[in-house]
Amino acid sequence: MSMAKHPPELNDLRMSEKARPLLDAVVKHITENVDPITEEYYRLGEGRADRWSHAPGQLELLQTAKDKARANGLWNFFLPNAETGEGLSNLDYAYIAAELGKNPLASETLNCSAPDTGNMEVLERVGTPEQKEKWLKPLLNGEIRSAYAMTEPNVASSDAKNISTSAVLEGDEWVINGEKFYISGAGDPRCKIMITMVKTSPEAETFKQQSQILVPIDAEGVKILGPMRVFGHDDAPHGHMHIKFDNVRVPKENILLGEGRGFEISQLRLGPGRIHHCMRSIGAADKALDMLIDRAISRKAFGKRIVDLGKNMETISRARIDIEAMRMMVLKAARAMDVLGNKEARIWVSAIKAMVPERAAQIIDQAMQVHGAAGLSQWFPLAEMYVGQRTLRFADGPDEVHHNVVARAEVKSYEDSNDRKSRVRTSTGGRMFEGP
Amino acid sequence: MSMAKHPPELNDLRMSEKARPLLDAVVKHITENVDPITEEYYRLGEGRADRWSHAPGQLELLQTAKDKARANGLWNFFLPNAETGEGLSNLDYAYIAAELGKNPLASETLNCSAPDTGNMEVLERVGTPEQKEKWLKPLLNGEIRSAYAMTEPNVASSDAKNISTSAVLEGDEWVINGEKFYISGAGDPRCKIMITMVKTSPEAETFKQQSQILVPIDAEGVKILGPMRVFGHDDAPHGHMHIKFDNVRVPKENILLGEGRGFEISQLRLGPGRIHHCMRSIGAADKALDMLIDRAISRKAFGKRIVDLGKNMETISRARIDIEAMRMMVLKAARAMDVLGNKEARIWVSAIKAMVPERAAQIIDQAMQVHGAAGLSQWFPLAEMYVGQRTLRFADGPDEVHHNVVARAEVKSYEDSNDRKSRVRTSTGGRMFEGP
Amino acid sequence: MSMAKHPPELNDLRMSEKARPLLDAVVKHITENVDPITEEYYRLGEGRADRWSHAPGQLELLQTAKDKARANGLWNFFLPNAETGEGLSNLDYAYIAAELGKNPLASETLNCSAPDTGNMEVLERVGTPEQKEKWLKPLLNGEIRSAYAMTEPNVASSDAKNISTSAVLEGDEWVINGEKFYISGAGDPRCKIMITMVKTSPEAETFKQQSQILVPIDAEGVKILGPMRVFGHDDAPHGHMHIKFDNVRVPKENILLGEGRGFEISQLRLGPGRIHHCMRSIGAADKALDMLIDRAISRKAFGKRIVDLGKNMETISRARIDIEAMRMMVLKAARAMDVLGNKEARIWVSAIKAMVPERAAQIIDQAMQVHGAAGLSQWFPLAEMYVGQRTLRFADGPDEVHHNVVARAEVKSYEDSNDRKSRVRTSTGGRMFEGP
Amino acid sequence: MSMAKHPPELNDLRMSEKARPLLDAVVKHITENVDPITEEYYRLGEGRADRWSHAPGQLELLQTAKDKARANGLWNFFLPNAETGEGLSNLDYAYIAAELGKNPLASETLNCSAPDTGNMEVLERVGTPEQKEKWLKPLLNGEIRSAYAMTEPNVASSDAKNISTSAVLEGDEWVINGEKFYISGAGDPRCKIMITMVKTSPEAETFKQQSQILVPIDAEGVKILGPMRVFGHDDAPHGHMHIKFDNVRVPKENILLGEGRGFEISQLRLGPGRIHHCMRSIGAADKALDMLIDRAISRKAFGKRIVDLGKNMETISRARIDIEAMRMMVLKAARAMDVLGNKEARIWVSAIKAMVPERAAQIIDQAMQVHGAAGLSQWFPLAEMYVGQRTLRFADGPDEVHHNVVARAEVKSYEDSNDRKSRVRTSTGGRMFEGP
Repeated sequence: MSMAKHPPELNDLRMSEKARPLLDAVVKHITENVDPITEEYYRLGEGRADRWSHAPGQLELLQTAKDKARANGLWNFFLPNAETGEGLSNLDYAYIAAELGKNPLASETLNCSAPDTGNMEVLERVGTPEQKEKWLKPLLNGEIRSAYAMTEPNVASSDAKNISTSAVLEGDEWVINGEKFYISGAGDPRCKIMITMVKTSPEAETFKQQSQILVPIDAEGVKILGPMRVFGHDDAPHGHMHIKFDNVRVPKENILLGEGRGFEISQLRLGPGRIHHCMRSIGAADKALDMLIDRAISRKAFGKRIVDLGKNMETISRARIDIEAMRMMVLKAARAMDVLGNKEARIWVSAIKAMVPERAAQIIDQAMQVHGAAGLSQWFPLAEMYVGQRTLRFADGPDEVHHNVVARAEVKSYEDSNDRKSRVRTSTGGRMFEGP
Repeated sequence: MSMAKHPPELNDLRMSEKARPLLDAVVKHITENVDPITEEYYRLGEGRADRWSHAPGQLELLQTAKDKARANGLWNFFLPNAETGEGLSNLDYAYIAAELGKNPLASETLNCSAPDTGNMEVLERVGTPEQKEKWLKPLLNGEIRSAYAMTEPNVASSDAKNISTSAVLEGDEWVINGEKFYISGAGDPRCKIMITMVKTSPEAETFKQQSQILVPIDAEGVKILGPMRVFGHDDAPHGHMHIKFDNVRVPKENILLGEGRGFEISQLRLGPGRIHHCMRSIGAADKALDMLIDRAISRKAFGKRIVDLGKNMETISRARIDIEAMRMMVLKAARAMDVLGNKEARIWVSAIKAMVPERAAQIIDQAMQVHGAAGLSQWFPLAEMYVGQRTLRFADGPDEVHHNVVARAEVKSYEDSNDRKSRVRTSTGGRMFEGP
Repeated sequence: MSMAKHPPELNDLRMSEKARPLLDAVVKHITENVDPITEEYYRLGEGRADRWSHAPGQLELLQTAKDKARANGLWNFFLPNAETGEGLSNLDYAYIAAELGKNPLASETLNCSAPDTGNMEVLERVGTPEQKEKWLKPLLNGEIRSAYAMTEPNVASSDAKNISTSAVLEGDEWVINGEKFYISGAGDPRCKIMITMVKTSPEAETFKQQSQILVPIDAEGVKILGPMRVFGHDDAPHGHMHIKFDNVRVPKENILLGEGRGFEISQLRLGPGRIHHCMRSIGAADKALDMLIDRAISRKAFGKRIVDLGKNMETISRARIDIEAMRMMVLKAARAMDVLGNKEARIWVSAIKAMVPERAAQIIDQAMQVHGAAGLSQWFPLAEMYVGQRTLRFADGPDEVHHNVVARAEVKSYEDSNDRKSRVRTSTGGRMFEGP
Repeated sequence: MSMAKHPPELNDLRMSEKARPLLDAVVKHITENVDPITEEYYRLGEGRADRWSHAPGQLELLQTAKDKARANGLWNFFLPNAETGEGLSNLDYAYIAAELGKNPLASETLNCSAPDTGNMEVLERVGTPEQKEKWLKPLLNGEIRSAYAMTEPNVASSDAKNISTSAVLEGDEWVINGEKFYISGAGDPRCKIMITMVKTSPEAETFKQQSQILVPIDAEGVKILGPMRVFGHDDAPHGHMHIKFDNVRVPKENILLGEGRGFEISQLRLGPGRIHHCMRSIGAADKALDMLIDRAISRKAFGKRIVDLGKNMETISRARIDIEAMRMMVLKAARAMDVLGNKEARIWVSAIKAMVPERAAQIIDQAMQVHGAAGLSQWFPLAEMYVGQRTLRFADGPDEVHHNVVARAEVKSYEDSNDRKSRVRTSTGGRMFEGP
């Protein structure tokens, strides 16, 4: 991490006094309003005729919880340091995200599901009054949902400069052609709008070629080719869709911020998304460790509890140590966003994005191993949790890209320092060493 | 490994001269008779009304390939060193298994699918003439299929002594009660018989309490509760079934070898199964490495081919080195079975069982990472392959049990040696060291 | 970690306002008073006739820096939350320890070298007035040094209950017999006193058998058999000595706190020692990473800077991420000692003791690899640094013992919780899972 | 590995019938003639006045064993497939190398120490009659010793093209200037000749710039600046020397094979050296595992033998499995040299060079951990063994270079194959997958 800027308050990772009542209210809301409807919500969905819509009753059930949240003032508080919403700091939000991660409906009842949060954040910061009226308002009201169309199947989109979906201005319209996949949420019938990364200026300098444009999902030429499955799961009706843009036309005004400013908007988007993801990953690892212990103390083999066999105790210790270390790092990254701003904090955010899902997946895998074959089956959520973490290692860029961000910052910080030689020449044993 | 017995020929890992024409014939058979029907076979199955049966035409298609195999003398050659079949050595069979692993229908067209091979081996060796007539004969003819009912949901069955399904002799019948799961192949409508591990003599000494009994799958009281899914997949119609035995009655004569000899039979069963599994795992790792390279040389990011980014070249090298090392170890374990016999060779077999699927899964995972998010999807077989290897880490006992077999043999070998102190006292630097 | 007790302030890891001037003063002292004498100090020592004493001039040089520290009020501030000294919190001390770790003479010039700090802490808390007068006073004045005699060569002393050196009361004297090794600091001619762990009551209940007794190093029967070397290094004149107690007699009053209270004293001793060790380990890892980068950007191979070859960038990123995660964990453990007390905090302390030196050693090893063969040589301090971290994995108990402390607390915390089932039964995907 | 060429006999890893009596004779020789003098040899050396020569009596003692070896026909048999010597195959030699690795004097008594073996091999194959008479003859007689001067301190010599020591032809002499380090064996007073890699044709195409020249160590201008130490050890009197070439002049005829053919000679040199190194590494890992077990079954902690605590059994199993896998790979690499020739086999040789020392070092490290702090000390050879393996990871090129050799061959093999798409398109589950 570029440590050049490290004011002391960066290490104050306490939740703020003012946010604690909110955290309590969220916990109460989940316990009283969300947990009780969760099982029924999924039961209703199970027999539904069309996987790609909700079953009768599902959305109504959800709405009751949403109404209660709104009535209690728990609505749209996700937008960090913003006028809209509670103006929560990223750090405070991280603590709340950990709670949201424990129930899969919780976020939506508070109108803070991905990718809507990121999309609303972008609209709120760079949208025109018209764009806000048309898209941000219904999103803030929880009336519609949205998607973010970035990744493409035909290029290595880990390098965003590769993005090749083109948008050409013809008269008053952008004409868009290309293919995107893994567009999460685009399967939901409530999804109405996609923020779409396109190449508008192939001749411009490298980081000015891309733009972001608002594309209504029902625009002519938007063809949903089908869902991407991960380890066989389609995550319907949310879905991770494969979409073709075939001469899609949208009004000129649908561009965000302006031509060639696509990368600039991506920086804004950093926002709470990755912090939220990583806090949920930690929640998953935590739960897997609980499950590992539960199984390991409940069964015996070779005359001993499984927990007392082989390396299992050390596995537990290493998992706990790493979970706590990851938690502190995620809190610190959130704090860095608050104290240093998104630009400086981006190294910390890449650090946790590269660190957390990989290790969380390992911990879940270890829990599966302790469960025996049953651990892979529908009797336990572990396989599903594993798939979630494995997938996260690609969301918002693969681990390798984030490691590269961290490493480049580290090398640059060293290159820029004035005391390079003194940093490497003296032994901790006190002697001067004279390499060639 | 207990190295006490290591005759020089243990390191002769060549396929025998006499088996090479057979290998060639198998390769030809797969290329000419199996590969061409494979796609259609699965296509036919895709729309079928009942997941738990075959679609019209599927079995007929398979039969054509089976007929050809039989006509060419490629039938039942799996039984190692046996009167029936070709009498292939385990080593020769290992080479063939590597080819069988490349097409999922290949084994069945040669009548050597798991778990039939193990079941036939057991029947051939310890079955009574009546048992052979009734079950072995149709199995050898490929007319029926079979299952092996061992694992139980309610105990840690990694410790086989925990097996608690009871069989009590009442008059001329065994009355069986209990629950089994992960009974592979029991979903296939052609499956007619299960070799079932039961506890017959709870008062006997530890390793004499269990027996193995032939249970027709259509016996009254056999209730198939449903399929176990692994990472969501049910592997229909083969299936890994969850079965309840509810006062199931079978004739007294259905016991194999005799009361209390269940563990003894398990030793026989070692046979080609684990060698076969591990050779297929190596095939999967090999294929994943090909796919990794294919993707890595086909796409560019940040101005370079992906293969030239970051640690990818080292990942390729480590994968190749480990694949070749695993291949030699599996061949050696097969050779050990031939030269030393199953009992002595069992340490080698545990070694490869603990070594191969774990590492194969890692290599597949690395291939997924290089593919980006697409690597997890239905566009590539990698996720499916990963699930296969992950599951194998439990089949025939979890890794931990096999590591324990190897370690106990190793410790015993050291304890039994006469030159213990000389083995540890001299430095390779020549000095004598005098620890306390 | 037992998370039952986790007050919000546990995550406030800022240095206190009041300690910051002290930190500044320490940094200034090291820069102005210690760094300038360091090279000469070691140069003086190099040619000395007797490795086990100081060369003429060495101690005088050190004394000048000690005098300055004392004059500036930087003396004996190590004792956490104590009357004596500055009463620094563990957290504040942790920040200072990171600075002390950068110069090998720094600690001693401030009178806070190991193992004196731990010994002074014990004497200050449980010593009688006579003991304090005789041993604590000269230690606080920096006039003598001390050792802590715990580890024994003939038993697995990772299990402290194994300690077998016996002390038998004969009249007014304890008669001590046994053998100890790795007694750090006992080679220094200024070392006058050893706090010695002995078995006084072999018949008592397990944790009441041991006592700690003050043994003057010049007592008759104390035989220093020689130095223990680590990777060939003897660390003279400090030394890690192998000592025989051959009918050593010390007055009855030399016992600390009373018979059978040896383990109780060990708990007190936790103090700043492990925090200090771990902060220095982090300093070493930090320095190794600087060196890695320095080398990797300075040399070329195959047409590229070494930093741009293979996995080196990812190695850098992973090192930086883990260093920052470890730093947060060490600060948190220090904070836990301040907020929760030593007893509750001991899980956190075991966590960092098991986590930090192992990973620090790996990072140093990676730096060596990037340096090529030169990295192992006398031209760079890396090999020496590696040995230091490798050794730390045994100091104050091997990693395995600390992992066991963490795991036992974790299992107990789970067993004690009231909501066990709810913690493991619901999927993060929202469904209820019904394992057997 | 390029698997294109894999004749069946590559998997016949048996020692040849004809070599077995030789192996027996070598074992007998070590037991009867070398082991009995080993302790005295090192004892004599310990008090010697000059670390960089032998003590009186040492060389005489060695000579008695050398005479016996020669009398028994055990002399110079190292040269694989050569006229001189026994013409041992590399595979047979590998088996013998494993025995040689058990006593540090054994190799020298049979005149097959590194780096003499490689140097003699080169001279035998490419030397002129005059060069052979002057240098090969006394080397084959064991009268002198030699060194190989390759690595340079001022460049990343992992890339041999970086070698910058220059040789310029002036009249009838080469004038050499530059610096080399880690020149093993150059400390021995018997060392008379160095094969030196120099740059003779900086303007030539990349792989024609280097040459190898014979430089007598007593030539004017050869300045031995001092020994390189590894982890503090200087390995005197053998030594790994730092040497300056300051206008060193040698006759024109001292060039080997001709100007610009330095890389060509390096290929020849592959010979038995790396096989030998790796077999010794396996011997070291084997010994470390014996020591681990010896300690783990001899001591108790927490009421159990250490071997029964935590992950120790799994550590033992993984070590044994990997040792056997590495052994098979080294034998296979040796066999590949015999069957395919050095050029084709070089991929296999790089594979074992990258695989074996790294893992051997880990196994030794695990043995140290089980020994507790004593494992790092002079009481056990483990630290010394660790340093040996750690150093080997640089000898003949760092791991990274060898991984790169393997990976490049692997990628090329895939690129060259005709059936690329069929290799990656079908699932092992039988379906065709249609990635974009």
